[in-house]
Amino acid sequence: MLVLITYDVNVTTESGKSRLRKVAKQCVNCGQRVQNSVFECLLDPTQFAQLKHRLEGIVDPKTDSLRYYFLGSNWKKRIEHFGAKSTYDPEDVLMI
Amino acid sequence: MLVLITYDVNVTTESGKSRLRKVAKQCVNCGQRVQNSVFECLLDPTQFAQLKHRLEGIVDPKTDSLRYYFLGSNWKKRIEHFGAKSTYDPEDVLMI
Repeated sequence: MLVLITYDVNVTTESGKSRLRKVAKQCVNCGQRVQNSVFECLLDPTQFAQLKHRLEGIVDPKTDSLRYYFLGSNWKKRIEHFGAKSTYDPEDVLMI
Repeated sequence: MLVLITYDVNVTTESGKSRLRKVAKQCVNCGQRVQNSVFECLLDPTQFAQLKHRLEGIVDPKTDSLRYYFLGSNWKKRIEHFGAKSTYDPEDVLMI
């Protein structure tokens, strides 16, 4: 399933900047960055549960926000893009 | 239908900052800001087409990015939130 993950981390403090880097790193490991704080991740339920657990262990729930959007398996019909950074297909085979 | 709109606007220039303000203003008029650059908008197809037209007239497609995610009518099952800013129901009646 495709899970869209968006986040807002309060970066007015040094610890906030550190949390932001950690959240981004976790997401980079699990999916495709499509915008600064927006990732599309193809995950099975177990992988999602693990990522969610890690992310929620990093953020400060009083000041930071995480949102998950479940786009299912029919996600290709649910996404439109305009502008910079061309779209990609996370199910495509990587050609080297 | 619920349309999730996310954007990245290049704000390294004054004109970029102006575009960002204009994009945010259009989105605020049409939906609920759930994160800094993430809006959830309950729109019919005509309203969506109009908003899309306005947004794409504002951004610079060479440097800025807009993404639309169509969460359909069954969107409540597709969203999870963690942390700051409590969730809300855009279909709720506003009580004053």
